[in-house]
Amino acid sequence: MNEEIVNRPCSVRRSLEVLGDRWTFLILREAFFGVRYYDQFLSNLGIATNILSVRLKGLVANGILDKQRDPDDARRVTYQLTEKGLDLYPVTLALMKWGDDWLADEDGPPLSLHHKECDQEFTAVLSCSQCGEPVKAQEVRYEVRPSGRCADLPPRAAN
Amino acid sequence: MNEEIVNRPCSVRRSLEVLGDRWTFLILREAFFGVRYYDQFLSNLGIATNILSVRLKGLVANGILDKQRDPDDARRVTYQLTEKGLDLYPVTLALMKWGDDWLADEDGPPLSLHHKECDQEFTAVLSCSQCGEPVKAQEVRYEVRPSGRCADLPPRAAN
Repeated sequence: MNEEIVNRPCSVRRSLEVLGDRWTFLILREAFFGVRYYDQFLSNLGIATNILSVRLKGLVANGILDKQRDPDDARRVTYQLTEKGLDLYPVTLALMKWGDDWLADEDGPPLSLHHKECDQEFTAVLSCSQCGEPVKAQEVRYEVRPSGRCADLPPRAAN
Repeated sequence: MNEEIVNRPCSVRRSLEVLGDRWTFLILREAFFGVRYYDQFLSNLGIATNILSVRLKGLVANGILDKQRDPDDARRVTYQLTEKGLDLYPVTLALMKWGDDWLADEDGPPLSLHHKECDQEFTAVLSCSQCGEPVKAQEVRYEVRPSGRCADLPPRAAN
């Protein structure tokens, strides 16, 4: 938590307060890749044990990962994505898409994504829930909900 | 940069190396809200001047923000989102959507989004570029591209 992030109550800020830092995102990425065990997170990320422990604890406390005794081996515990955690998939895919588009080296994106539902290789698109079209920043107007606490929102929309 | 994040070459990691931390995301959020001036970032975020300066410099160096002399006032400079920066909009909206769904208080999400193209209030959906349907983690298989360097990817897909 950083008490300095104060001035614009908004879900982006709230999300970042929970997700915290790069390590948290990378732990989530590993979880989406199927990693379940502490040792796997440790070796895949090359993360320090104390940092990993603190981040896992935070993700469990925030209901993003569920810590359970491993049904196959009572001496081990597993970390599984909860529904709240699985709902972070769009954030992970959006980060991956941007990296593929802007940061890939000459070999291109390292991974391709295959959508089992339509059986095609795909890329992630952020779409409008109403018309289904891809959404661009310039096409969005922000409205402060009557109940919202964004009174300090500047009058200008994006761009 | 954190040299410890080593083991899985992947665009998520690359993106996080550029985006860095919470402040960077919040500066981008402000930019999407239309903020252009150093002083506005400073007062809207309640951020320390040295942190803001370093983060803005990094965003300019990475081609995400473009620093220009203000055409209306030659004594000032503006920070505008480049094409690369505008392409981060899906990441911002995905973070907002998750926060709206999981972290909103009893008043509900603070902001509503209006899609000018279809003239409707909307929420962000992460969709498949091929079939247009919303994508869930369980429906995606990862494939290491022949040119990719993800040889350490574990065999298990998500879930």
